[in-house]
Amino acid sequence: MSTTRLEAFSDGVFAVAITLLVLQFVDPGAKNGELLSKLLGQWPQLATYGASFLTIGVIWVNHHTVFKGIREIDRTIQFINLVLLLLIVLVPYPTELLGRYLNSGQNASVAAAFYAIVMTAMSISFQVLVAYALTHPKLLRPEIKATSVRSVIPRFGLGLVTYALAIGLSFLSATLVVALFAATAVYYAFNQLPWMTADRE
Amino acid sequence: MSTTRLEAFSDGVFAVAITLLVLQFVDPGAKNGELLSKLLGQWPQLATYGASFLTIGVIWVNHHTVFKGIREIDRTIQFINLVLLLLIVLVPYPTELLGRYLNSGQNASVAAAFYAIVMTAMSISFQVLVAYALTHPKLLRPEIKATSVRSVIPRFGLGLVTYALAIGLSFLSATLVVALFAATAVYYAFNQLPWMTADRE
Amino acid sequence: MSTTRLEAFSDGVFAVAITLLVLQFVDPGAKNGELLSKLLGQWPQLATYGASFLTIGVIWVNHHTVFKGIREIDRTIQFINLVLLLLIVLVPYPTELLGRYLNSGQNASVAAAFYAIVMTAMSISFQVLVAYALTHPKLLRPEIKATSVRSVIPRFGLGLVTYALAIGLSFLSATLVVALFAATAVYYAFNQLPWMTADRE
Amino acid sequence: MSTTRLEAFSDGVFAVAITLLVLQFVDPGAKNGELLSKLLGQWPQLATYGASFLTIGVIWVNHHTVFKGIREIDRTIQFINLVLLLLIVLVPYPTELLGRYLNSGQNASVAAAFYAIVMTAMSISFQVLVAYALTHPKLLRPEIKATSVRSVIPRFGLGLVTYALAIGLSFLSATLVVALFAATAVYYAFNQLPWMTADRE
Repeated sequence: MSTTRLEAFSDGVFAVAITLLVLQFVDPGAKNGELLSKLLGQWPQLATYGASFLTIGVIWVNHHTVFKGIREIDRTIQFINLVLLLLIVLVPYPTELLGRYLNSGQNASVAAAFYAIVMTAMSISFQVLVAYALTHPKLLRPEIKATSVRSVIPRFGLGLVTYALAIGLSFLSATLVVALFAATAVYYAFNQLPWMTADRE
Repeated sequence: MSTTRLEAFSDGVFAVAITLLVLQFVDPGAKNGELLSKLLGQWPQLATYGASFLTIGVIWVNHHTVFKGIREIDRTIQFINLVLLLLIVLVPYPTELLGRYLNSGQNASVAAAFYAIVMTAMSISFQVLVAYALTHPKLLRPEIKATSVRSVIPRFGLGLVTYALAIGLSFLSATLVVALFAATAVYYAFNQLPWMTADRE
Repeated sequence: MSTTRLEAFSDGVFAVAITLLVLQFVDPGAKNGELLSKLLGQWPQLATYGASFLTIGVIWVNHHTVFKGIREIDRTIQFINLVLLLLIVLVPYPTELLGRYLNSGQNASVAAAFYAIVMTAMSISFQVLVAYALTHPKLLRPEIKATSVRSVIPRFGLGLVTYALAIGLSFLSATLVVALFAATAVYYAFNQLPWMTADRE
Repeated sequence: MSTTRLEAFSDGVFAVAITLLVLQFVDPGAKNGELLSKLLGQWPQLATYGASFLTIGVIWVNHHTVFKGIREIDRTIQFINLVLLLLIVLVPYPTELLGRYLNSGQNASVAAAFYAIVMTAMSISFQVLVAYALTHPKLLRPEIKATSVRSVIPRFGLGLVTYALAIGLSFLSATLVVALFAATAVYYAFNQLPWMTADRE
């Protein structure tokens, strides 16, 4: 199986999942003159919307970068990719819950932990995908060298540690969890996977 | 009509249908401190989500494999494909119902039977698509040989029998129905259609 | 502007609109033992789902056929196409209403008329698209001859008359309206636009 | 990174966001004989649906035109594009609110201002994308000349001013805001970005 159609299908799923994030916003049912304050009260949902949108967007960009280095796919990588997509499609649900319960004491911690767990599981499945590809050289394009490959591992590890820390952080402050994910997404947006480029130097 | 645009359209429908599965998860409306138990109580929905996601994902992969062997499409195959898509798009509804009623006695059997019927109808329409293509050699690429073609029939038949058994099973245990579909999907993920590959040997 | 990206965008909109049709099915909220009768009571929604799915599917196939004969697009055709998509995206709403009110006396007529109006407007905008292309030969591929072009007009006219009749029919029987649209879709599925093929003979 | 996959992903997001606009229409829950008047009472939602659909459609066409002139993308443009998509995906929410509150006195002004703010932010992010591309000649195809580039700026500025005026207008009449956006979209549909074409003369 060539990578083209797997990428096209994954792109479709990424695009739909990222767009469904908007469905967490629902008419607050405002009486006359109340709409402004009701809308301003929805800032937690705007924050979780932004954090999830940027995170899925950045994973999509990295997904693309990784598949540019892959020449051929086997059944295992297809299955890992399916599990990754399963987790990405799930993201709108914890995003909605965190937006609703961000100011709700004990429930906020549960919502933040659930959010951080789904995001971390998504990150782990993406890293399993990369690790599987890197350890199966016949799937890679010949220009990907083993040396550049090794330099990717610590980079990904960093993201994983950040995400895992967020699970613990959720018991301190749900708002900080949202800020951490948004910041991580912006950081990765400007510091994407260098392996493919570095390799051509 | 070339297969390219039919595949692109089918990919789009597969991608959207698989992503809409997340909409079965709705805010359980938890009071203070209740969110954790409410979320844990949603495990049936997580189970049906996983089973349906993997099943649609695996059918997508097989759909792709079959169309790699098809060179040309006629109006009949286009219509069969449309019916297949009609059933795939329907899947989020029985998935949601089974998630909601999995622990609800008599309703659980009805929901499981409805789920198994839609999934079996989907499987039958996919097999009608394959059977139609195989019996119309002018639609196939020349390298697909009649011998390899015959070896596909029992393979698909097995899937059909499994799915049909699930309809009966739904009156014993709705949970077993979910487990059966999830297991079948994982099995097929690692044992995909071999006909195209085998034929090149 | 080449036709490729306009077709890709249109395909995406067709695929999402056709998939959103499933959202008209909602959990009927059954008490113990009630689910079977509640589900059987949803047959009107299944009927409108099938009719709309097949109609959008068949328009998608014809849309594709028409664009195979188009070499170049201008701003007017782009705008007509946008209006066509606007109407296609609207379809899930009248579909849902007709499913809900099919057995509701006077409301059933209103829902059926609304459904028939949207479907007829969609049909008209598609025919405006075809008529505009046919009367602007510089947009067409050179192999499309004026003779074959003329033979398309009565064919499309027939569809338009059928759809317009449905508006009147909606005051007699909402169920007949659904049946008429489903039958028309199946008819067109097997008797698609012949102009491109005929032309090559 | 080539522009192909970024365009494909953006197309997917545009297509889904434009289609989700239909979800603002919900069954008005009519009792016997009430459906007609309830449907006629939904005209504000039809108006905002049309205005948003045409606006997103026209931005999609312009997005396409701009990327035809771009040869290569860097991380900054990718991030700007992601922010543009984040705002486009958000549009269905202010569209729904404006449809619901168009006749609701003070709430109508708030809903119209919110709508105008999101649309203006979307317009600004699109113009930042264009400005960034124009000021980084290495990202552009060689046939795009600096002279034609300068002629684009006032054109885009006009759109921005119109949109910004809409924010002020929202305190006078919410209906006028909808009409202004619909008129602007139709205007741009027939007067698209000329820079690429002009350049080839």
